[in-house]
Amino acid sequence: MSHAATPAYDQLAATYARLHRFEHLQAIAGWDQAANMPPKGNEARGAAMAELAALTHRLRTEPQVKSQLAQAEQEPLSELQRANLREIRRDWLASNALPESLVQAQTLARSRCEHAWRTQRPANDWAGFVENFREVLRLAREEAGLLAQHTGLRKYDALMDRYEPGMTCAVVDRVFGDLRQWLPGLIAQVRERQAREAVVEPRGPFPVASQRALCERVMRLLGFDFEGGRLDVSTHPFCGGVPEDVRITTRYREEEFAQSLMGTIHETGHARYEQGRPRDLLAQPVSQARSMALHESQSLSFEMQLARSRGFVGLLAPMITAQFGAQPAFEADNLYRLFTRVKPGFIRVEADEVTYPAHVILRYEIERPLIEGEIEPEDIPALWDAKMMELLGIDTRGNFRNGPLQDVHWPESLFGYFPCYTLGAMYAAQWFAGMRRQVSGLDAGIARGELAPVFEWLGQHIWNPASRWTTDELTRRASGETLNPAHFRAHLEARYLG
Amino acid sequence: MSHAATPAYDQLAATYARLHRFEHLQAIAGWDQAANMPPKGNEARGAAMAELAALTHRLRTEPQVKSQLAQAEQEPLSELQRANLREIRRDWLASNALPESLVQAQTLARSRCEHAWRTQRPANDWAGFVENFREVLRLAREEAGLLAQHTGLRKYDALMDRYEPGMTCAVVDRVFGDLRQWLPGLIAQVRERQAREAVVEPRGPFPVASQRALCERVMRLLGFDFEGGRLDVSTHPFCGGVPEDVRITTRYREEEFAQSLMGTIHETGHARYEQGRPRDLLAQPVSQARSMALHESQSLSFEMQLARSRGFVGLLAPMITAQFGAQPAFEADNLYRLFTRVKPGFIRVEADEVTYPAHVILRYEIERPLIEGEIEPEDIPALWDAKMMELLGIDTRGNFRNGPLQDVHWPESLFGYFPCYTLGAMYAAQWFAGMRRQVSGLDAGIARGELAPVFEWLGQHIWNPASRWTTDELTRRASGETLNPAHFRAHLEARYLG
Repeated sequence: MSHAATPAYDQLAATYARLHRFEHLQAIAGWDQAANMPPKGNEARGAAMAELAALTHRLRTEPQVKSQLAQAEQEPLSELQRANLREIRRDWLASNALPESLVQAQTLARSRCEHAWRTQRPANDWAGFVENFREVLRLAREEAGLLAQHTGLRKYDALMDRYEPGMTCAVVDRVFGDLRQWLPGLIAQVRERQAREAVVEPRGPFPVASQRALCERVMRLLGFDFEGGRLDVSTHPFCGGVPEDVRITTRYREEEFAQSLMGTIHETGHARYEQGRPRDLLAQPVSQARSMALHESQSLSFEMQLARSRGFVGLLAPMITAQFGAQPAFEADNLYRLFTRVKPGFIRVEADEVTYPAHVILRYEIERPLIEGEIEPEDIPALWDAKMMELLGIDTRGNFRNGPLQDVHWPESLFGYFPCYTLGAMYAAQWFAGMRRQVSGLDAGIARGELAPVFEWLGQHIWNPASRWTTDELTRRASGETLNPAHFRAHLEARYLG
Repeated sequence: MSHAATPAYDQLAATYARLHRFEHLQAIAGWDQAANMPPKGNEARGAAMAELAALTHRLRTEPQVKSQLAQAEQEPLSELQRANLREIRRDWLASNALPESLVQAQTLARSRCEHAWRTQRPANDWAGFVENFREVLRLAREEAGLLAQHTGLRKYDALMDRYEPGMTCAVVDRVFGDLRQWLPGLIAQVRERQAREAVVEPRGPFPVASQRALCERVMRLLGFDFEGGRLDVSTHPFCGGVPEDVRITTRYREEEFAQSLMGTIHETGHARYEQGRPRDLLAQPVSQARSMALHESQSLSFEMQLARSRGFVGLLAPMITAQFGAQPAFEADNLYRLFTRVKPGFIRVEADEVTYPAHVILRYEIERPLIEGEIEPEDIPALWDAKMMELLGIDTRGNFRNGPLQDVHWPESLFGYFPCYTLGAMYAAQWFAGMRRQVSGLDAGIARGELAPVFEWLGQHIWNPASRWTTDELTRRASGETLNPAHFRAHLEARYLG
């Protein structure tokens, strides 16, 4: 046995490999809970997962980890090991920055708020919600304050950093500020233009077995590896499992097929990121997806950039016809109009790619001052109503159910997460702009079903680098510049006004 | 907080509750591996499950457990706590009696032998098998020797005790010795009688969706709780999951339906035992199924005692017709003849209930002297051939594939397990004999679909007591006597010669 020159680093790597193995079981049990578990299994499952979570938390907070981190910094590490050490430190900080009492109080407050929200939302009970939400917010502010102390970031940045390392309000303000200027005008222009288009609606029913067959066929076209993953059903579609065995879910309604199809394509984007992470490093944090915005940039690369492009819709048309039989709505030009319709609405998760950013800007413009103590929960409805009118021209007064009560993010204290959705859309547009510069005839190839160049580009620039570089460095290497929202604007204008 | 009068017991109970939660994840991940997992997930799953197995082994072998066991013996325990302590001690002994080096060597030897067996069996390669098997046997003998030292039992008894606590060769010799006297004659009589019967074969194909619907309908009739369990598909059917969420599996072949139907009924018997374990004690060893023979007595109570009875077949006939359409073979009397056909064959797992015990007697009569050093692997083929001829009148010379290579038990070192199958069949017959004495009109009720008395009896006498008493004590309380193979003989004679 050779004497290791990097004993502290090796010990950290061994601890994280162990965590990786325990988290495998956590991931599969979590997927099973959503996709398979009958109701009477819930209590025992919750207890089992909590026991494992306590164990992994203990492994992350053992005192020797802190000194190993300090020692490892002095060891002769390769560039890759150094990147891994940086990611280990990030993970360690997230587990060690907060006192146990705060974490427990948050778990309790979130659970109470989320549980009550499930009935408060249908009952449109804003006042009842605020009672619980006040405590969730108080603890989130405390958390933000502690994380800010540890990281030197401002409070909201410290929360956002958990999902999007390196992202700051300074950047988001600039990027969303720009978007805010032109988005309402663009929506109006697109709406006016689309009002003149005739669109034929598909006629159902669309049998579930056929929808499933369609989804699987499209997943194969998109390169999903069924030897290393599955498609199943759950109430809320997600991409779960482990990189070696990626489990995506969708849901089917007989009345229409676009939701399961587009949802599956979206999750397939997440899945290929996971399936494309560097195989030889899977047990280490450096192999993990770079950030939530980059993850979303993959699902949106698949769903928005690729699948709703005219060329790809031309590939989908015969597959849809093969499953459901021919009908006028399945003509490719009509399908394209269906898949690119723009319509302002109350609900973020149902929004098209043009109006979606308005929802995210609104959430950000409310939750940032909320965290930083500039406003209180009582102020939310008036702000919500004003911003929805301003951005989407929609009257939301008194409609809490389809207003601030629509998302699980606030009851769950996921402050700082919302911006990732739209940052992801921007990154996706930036990837495809870069791809088009580097791969000649990209769109003509897509229309012919030649998707390999797309996957190779994403694999090389996003999936395989994983967390090796910071997001800015990865973005520069991939596209020659850091985040530039001009690509998103150009994409929307080309697709919807071109 | 009150001062506990039973501090050591309480600590043990807390450790076992923790183990129960970790083993929940092990069970679900194991079920997923068999029922869902794509091939590329296997390596990571194996590593994750090994990591958790190492953790639970560590919890079981921590030095303080030994002293807690000793202290707890002196504490003022209730009768139930004392039973739980006895079961904890059993579990502790199983984890602590063997040195780590032996356990590791066994894992390695078993894995090598089992892996090679998968190709040696189709290749009929007995000589190749023996090369690996010699090491498996050597280690099993070492294990038996150590367990015998710890328990004071004879070697084979010490191995059998892992599956069937309290069972000894003395009892098995007596019971199987008796069986051996009358079984070949009974088989001959039944065969002669059935040769005169006309049986109409069902005509397929039998669509998988219809088979699945039939299985689910019968599971509901048998009281399986779908709010606390599922039916899925796997190559080798089993009953897995956790008592709060029991996962049974079956397999379907379009050419025939009896295998999936009867297999599902069999696993439903195992499942109801698990679903019927005392709810308030699930985290403790005393709530676990009493033994492997008692577990098998439940699957055989469902499959053999209940489902192949004339009354129950009368319930099945219209369900089968509803799924596959009417045909002459589905007439109840014909179905009954189909489900009770007796035919000696090479393969244990395909055997009917009359010839099955012959296979088990043979395995026992070979593996007992094998473990106790009276014979060597080279002696197996000649013994196998002689016993198969003697018991079933079948010529097996040179047919290793369908002879000693047919089971996974020996490559996996599961010595001492085989007797449980036939002991289970005997217990099942004893339960139904007891039930008939206590519940008047039982069989007429079954024919009318009134199954509640059966489930109530099994629940009260087997499921709910779980591991509270020794097997002998449980058997006496349930049926007024300990294991009595006369009931099994009476059952076979009544059904097949009556």
